[in-house]
Amino acid sequence: MPNLSNRGLEMPESPIRKLVPYAEAAKKKGRTVYHLNIGQPDIETPTVALNAVKNIDLNVIEYSHSAGIESYRRGLADYYNKFGLNVSFEDILITTGGSEALLFAFNSCLNAGDEVIIPEPFYANYNGFATTAGVNVVPVTANINDGFALPRIEEFEKLITDRTKAILICNPGNPTGYLYSKEELETLRDIVKKHDLYLIADEVYREFCYDGKTHYSVFNLEGIDDNVIVVDSVSKRYSMCGARIGAFISKNTKLIATALKYAQARLSPPTLGQIAGEAALQTPQSYFDEVINEYVGRRDILIEGLNKIEGVKCPVPGGAFYAVVELPVQNAERFCQWLLEDFEYNNQTVMIAPAAGFYATKGLGEREVRIAYVLNKEALKNAIECLDQALKVYPETVNSEAKQLIQ
Amino acid sequence: MPNLSNRGLEMPESPIRKLVPYAEAAKKKGRTVYHLNIGQPDIETPTVALNAVKNIDLNVIEYSHSAGIESYRRGLADYYNKFGLNVSFEDILITTGGSEALLFAFNSCLNAGDEVIIPEPFYANYNGFATTAGVNVVPVTANINDGFALPRIEEFEKLITDRTKAILICNPGNPTGYLYSKEELETLRDIVKKHDLYLIADEVYREFCYDGKTHYSVFNLEGIDDNVIVVDSVSKRYSMCGARIGAFISKNTKLIATALKYAQARLSPPTLGQIAGEAALQTPQSYFDEVINEYVGRRDILIEGLNKIEGVKCPVPGGAFYAVVELPVQNAERFCQWLLEDFEYNNQTVMIAPAAGFYATKGLGEREVRIAYVLNKEALKNAIECLDQALKVYPETVNSEAKQLIQ
Repeated sequence: MPNLSNRGLEMPESPIRKLVPYAEAAKKKGRTVYHLNIGQPDIETPTVALNAVKNIDLNVIEYSHSAGIESYRRGLADYYNKFGLNVSFEDILITTGGSEALLFAFNSCLNAGDEVIIPEPFYANYNGFATTAGVNVVPVTANINDGFALPRIEEFEKLITDRTKAILICNPGNPTGYLYSKEELETLRDIVKKHDLYLIADEVYREFCYDGKTHYSVFNLEGIDDNVIVVDSVSKRYSMCGARIGAFISKNTKLIATALKYAQARLSPPTLGQIAGEAALQTPQSYFDEVINEYVGRRDILIEGLNKIEGVKCPVPGGAFYAVVELPVQNAERFCQWLLEDFEYNNQTVMIAPAAGFYATKGLGEREVRIAYVLNKEALKNAIECLDQALKVYPETVNSEAKQLIQ
Repeated sequence: MPNLSNRGLEMPESPIRKLVPYAEAAKKKGRTVYHLNIGQPDIETPTVALNAVKNIDLNVIEYSHSAGIESYRRGLADYYNKFGLNVSFEDILITTGGSEALLFAFNSCLNAGDEVIIPEPFYANYNGFATTAGVNVVPVTANINDGFALPRIEEFEKLITDRTKAILICNPGNPTGYLYSKEELETLRDIVKKHDLYLIADEVYREFCYDGKTHYSVFNLEGIDDNVIVVDSVSKRYSMCGARIGAFISKNTKLIATALKYAQARLSPPTLGQIAGEAALQTPQSYFDEVINEYVGRRDILIEGLNKIEGVKCPVPGGAFYAVVELPVQNAERFCQWLLEDFEYNNQTVMIAPAAGFYATKGLGEREVRIAYVLNKEALKNAIECLDQALKVYPETVNSEAKQLIQ
């Protein structure tokens, strides 16, 4: 049997994959498992998008242009321009989800062995894309005690080497829900400008900003138009993750021409998803108002509920629909497994994601989990009660060692 | 402005991309352009697949499992098993087109700098995927005078080095339409076994075999189950290129587990395309009979018509819907451009693909073009007449230099 590639072996597993069999086993026992482990919302896709799919008037499901359907690109430019991003349709390549846009960015901007600085904790799949592209991730650590604010400029500058080609941020952040302020982004602009780096911003949660805060895009930063790439997706905006439609956006025409060659090699983004995406541009504002309202309600229930539990620490997320939570346990991964394997409360339990997989620095996040508030309020309340009860009986809490010593 | 990556700069352009502006200009002049340059058939998608999309019963377009929808994987296994491939659904990962399956194969099996041997001329985008994965393409040349048969075993063995990890074939072939015989595939099996290589077979045209010939899959080869990967796609089978649904198939469980990590990083193949793909499994045999009948009719018109033109050479393709054709011109790329820019016959012209981009060896295929017989018979007849007329007046034929010398 021929060997697998080294990079294939090095490719990281999903941080929750190990837990999936335990969740399945729990369900087989008849237990209700509240899935707060993935970013698959229960929010309905806008009717206008679903109807566009149902009413397709095609005899042949053809390839689209490699850059995407032009009318969709134009509509998307109009959408972004409502937020003052000032882009034209030619700055936009439609991609197969935000995932492909990130791969296009890594491949077009960085050589194998080059470095990208990413504030951690970060979306775990960035590791997978970096491994695929042979790019080295250099983490700069954001701390739960600072609410996961952008690390100080000196922390970035310490990490910049000859191989540093880019900084990658997610704003609002998955997994922290942190929303960068204008000032923080201007700090990044200064670093990027000084060292002539690419600034890749994953802005797929742009619409999910709470408490009257507004999203500030990297496209609003002056003087770095050639450095900036925005990664976008319709997955969360319209709760249509399965459409697999995203976008690679840059005002750097040479970069767009290079990314387009990657787009041409794979021929076309999904045509049906694009039809849904283009129609979704007509989604009424009331849809967003309701969705944001719903998420704020869920967030408030979650954060309030969690912070009431002794030893639990959770900053208030300003956007997206995730929170990174510190638990009073020795090892969050073991706790997550225990929840599925050994615990039940009224025949219910919770699946959450250990946060260590969202850090690149070994040893960080071992007491933290990521919780996605993608379930309705009733389910969320039940899940929090489960967690509360679980922590009361879990044997390996942070105090258990101390307790054992006393005994 | 930061530099682009070297690999981004090295990424090949599509062989027809340079010609697109000339085609657009011709159309703006009001000219009919017969597009025989791309594999986008005019055949209708099966009604059963279109109806499945129109009748979707979803409130949320969700991610599927990263490996694809299980019922679809099971249905696909049944489909393959009708052809005696003997696969289970666990051997199948649903991918975003055959393109993604090829990337998974390169990334999982080869390290950057490793070599893959590919009989040339080959599907031009293999170059793009190889560049993306940092893999070196080593061509073994198939000759138009042999009808593009598999090169002799010694030709392969001459090319095998310590870095050779795989052989990649396309069967039936794009761009040649060549259908490998059982004996040719057994030759490959012997090489693969002797040198413990991966054998990656792009079998997306498996249903398109003519003249009573049947397709022999690499899965029918005994004793190399751990070496074999089949790349598949619904694009051509059901004329739904825009669905972007393919498959990565292997009986090597470690390889499947590795490829699955790449699949997890990008979360999910397109859900809507999978719904269409699963429904398409119910396509009646009569659909295939009609389609094959249509393609045979087109092929016969094309090959007969072309071979009647003086100086044109075209072997009869046994499958797929392409032919590589040698023309009596000095440089096929210039001829293709001239057809669009300077020629018209009854206000019509033809767009065809210069074949040099389908060879990795510099200088080969310069007098050849690839023709896709994806238009109906009437259009095809008109296109052939255009080519015939064009070659009568084209100034740079192979004889023109001789003529000039005489004058």
